[in-house]
Amino acid sequence: MNYDHIFDQAIDRLHAEGRYRVFIDILRNKGAFPNARCFAGHNGPKPITVWCSNDYLAMGQHPKVVAAMEEALHDVGAGSGGTRNIGGNTHYHVELEAELADLHGKEAALLFTSGYVSNDATLSTLAKLLPGCVIFSDELNHASMIAGIRNSGCEKRIWRHNDVAHLEELLAAEDPDCPKLIAFESVYSMDGDVAPIHAICDLAEKYNALTYIDEVHAVGMYGARGGGISERDGAAHRIDLIEGTLGKAFGVMGGYVAASRKVIDCIRSYAPGFIFTTSLSPVLVAGVLASVRHLKASSVEREGQQAAAAYLKRAFADAGLPVMESTTHIVPLMVGDPVRAKKISDILLAEYGVYVQPINFPTVPRGTERLRFTPGPSHTVEMMDELTAALVEIWERMDLELRRAA
Amino acid sequence: MNYDHIFDQAIDRLHAEGRYRVFIDILRNKGAFPNARCFAGHNGPKPITVWCSNDYLAMGQHPKVVAAMEEALHDVGAGSGGTRNIGGNTHYHVELEAELADLHGKEAALLFTSGYVSNDATLSTLAKLLPGCVIFSDELNHASMIAGIRNSGCEKRIWRHNDVAHLEELLAAEDPDCPKLIAFESVYSMDGDVAPIHAICDLAEKYNALTYIDEVHAVGMYGARGGGISERDGAAHRIDLIEGTLGKAFGVMGGYVAASRKVIDCIRSYAPGFIFTTSLSPVLVAGVLASVRHLKASSVEREGQQAAAAYLKRAFADAGLPVMESTTHIVPLMVGDPVRAKKISDILLAEYGVYVQPINFPTVPRGTERLRFTPGPSHTVEMMDELTAALVEIWERMDLELRRAA
Ligand SMILES: Cc1ncc(COP(=O)(O)O)c(C=O)c1O
Ligand SMILES: Cc1ncc(COP(=O)(O)O)c(C=O)c1O
Repeated sequence: MNYDHIFDQAIDRLHAEGRYRVFIDILRNKGAFPNARCFAGHNGPKPITVWCSNDYLAMGQHPKVVAAMEEALHDVGAGSGGTRNIGGNTHYHVELEAELADLHGKEAALLFTSGYVSNDATLSTLAKLLPGCVIFSDELNHASMIAGIRNSGCEKRIWRHNDVAHLEELLAAEDPDCPKLIAFESVYSMDGDVAPIHAICDLAEKYNALTYIDEVHAVGMYGARGGGISERDGAAHRIDLIEGTLGKAFGVMGGYVAASRKVIDCIRSYAPGFIFTTSLSPVLVAGVLASVRHLKASSVEREGQQAAAAYLKRAFADAGLPVMESTTHIVPLMVGDPVRAKKISDILLAEYGVYVQPINFPTVPRGTERLRFTPGPSHTVEMMDELTAALVEIWERMDLELRRAA
Repeated sequence: MNYDHIFDQAIDRLHAEGRYRVFIDILRNKGAFPNARCFAGHNGPKPITVWCSNDYLAMGQHPKVVAAMEEALHDVGAGSGGTRNIGGNTHYHVELEAELADLHGKEAALLFTSGYVSNDATLSTLAKLLPGCVIFSDELNHASMIAGIRNSGCEKRIWRHNDVAHLEELLAAEDPDCPKLIAFESVYSMDGDVAPIHAICDLAEKYNALTYIDEVHAVGMYGARGGGISERDGAAHRIDLIEGTLGKAFGVMGGYVAASRKVIDCIRSYAPGFIFTTSLSPVLVAGVLASVRHLKASSVEREGQQAAAAYLKRAFADAGLPVMESTTHIVPLMVGDPVRAKKISDILLAEYGVYVQPINFPTVPRGTERLRFTPGPSHTVEMMDELTAALVEIWERMDLELRRAA
């Protein structure tokens, strides 16, 4: 038994496939998003523009968010000092859960340390509480949902992405009396497409299944109050559990689920991933409270972001760059090879001060490696034009195909 | 299939066993720990003293920690905006990992969103990387380690708490050529006892096993620089992976592991719970950096905390209260029944303004329900004398046994 040898082999496999990950070391500049400083190399911090942040609406630098965090820091201190049950249940947590329940029109909500943990803890606990439960999972569901489903130990059926006919086939094949849970996302963040929520809920009603939606890339972003695609489509009341993150459009960190009082009470009481961990810092919770409240009332950020995304998609398409079909705020550019994707990203950073991370396996399937751009309300038209020109130059330099419209 | 009915039954079971949890709603007062405000009842916030915080050294209100968080908030904003790989790798993260590696004398360290996630993600990933791995787990290991071990899908052997003879028996029974991992804690937080680290490392060497220690309740608290029991006992170099939290003695939030560069690179590259989640807010990371650096150089907080714990244990014992055998900073008082433990805790809060949460199943085994006190450097001798008198009064009122020394 030589442990070192096994660990070496594990790392060698990644290098061989060209998907060993190097983290780039940055600091964003508050007051000047999307600008940031990059600490690669030896000449001190270098200015860059960030094109791949999930702080979609730049709420991480919003004056109300920053002020709320500063106030909480001075009022109650840095951390909560305990689990929710033992000393770590602050008044901020209680208020934010009420705010999030209201956002989705649900009776209750429950906070977790991250969106990952909310998916993992909720799905695994919920399914364990339902004896003999079968989980129906969209094939492109996020790793955190897959973890929760795996950790539940339940039977699972994978349906083809967004294919409701396939979902129905699988539902119809099960015993009508066994508990069923359908788990899916609203916005799929790497492709930018959207689930047919109403059609899925129709099937859930027909086959008496519970529904669980991950709205991580949609909360704050869609719907008149930022309640996500389920709000935009008028479907929130048809879904049993709505899950979201506090770390993307809301700009801070943390995760949650919203559901009936009863379901939330079960998760709260039974989920180890909720029970046995220090609760979210009240400083973060205070920031999120300000962010959620702001985005309930203001649509300027959402509109600015949508306008930027539409502009960039159009600019890429006009230039013949292989922008993927996306009906949302996400602008993915298909490359199809991990080494090439990394090379393009490296040139952008070194020569153009543009930071966009290459996306490779296991985040996306092999052979679909891509660059994923997330323009925000603070990316200007000039920045987008420059970015497009830079990409065209690199595409030509690397002899990649440009499909210009006639 | 009636889902509501199943959820109702799940909640009813908790009420029937007297262990349905009610979270008390508080805000601690920065500048005046352990004082806090409690929002129960209808007469507005009521002043209380917190006796069950895991912010053991009150670092959550330390001026250096608060100043560092404020500075980061204004420099870079609220959240990181991405996963470590995609935009969320800030210079603060890189610096803190170096600081934590140094704290434990290891080559590298890796941050997670919590101590729970660090245990779950690391144990499950590590064991999966070692084909046929068998995990040896102390029977009192924390829920987060149990989750990681379960989620690894590996064979596991449970050894009786701190019983090295039993551990050796189990190790000797396995194939010498199969990979082995011994997982244990240093300070067991509900009993306050300590693992025999050197004896466990002797066995690990004899049977060629990897060692994994959870120092969550010891980092910042023991050792000349706060490196934990493994530092105090001069055993850190004998342990392969040291895991800790940033949410207890360090006063903020988050978790980490420290190990060889190679092992850290494997976890970094393969653990879904590390890869697929928004990284810790840079505001938190900046606070932790200040906290770790301070506690590396200063022992005042550790000494103050140890003195308070010693005083309180002595006061409880002198008064005949059933304080449990504890060799650490934790002061548990055995009650042995969930309903009685909750009643004592309720009286303390309502009549004495003392907040100590009753600890029940699943946090401790049934029949060992207790009150767990964590006096800190800011709990005064007067507060401890008053607390002891209050407990004696309640013990007498409830006809519980007081075993006064002759
Ligand atoms: C679809 C989806 N769900 C859940 C998560 C996890 O959320 P968080 O970053 O808050 O852990 C992510 C990304 O991080 C995601 O893309
Ligand atoms: C022994 C032990 N390990 C791990 C954890 C989890 O750490 P965190 O609170 O940072 O999630 C805890 C408590 O919360 C614990 O008591």
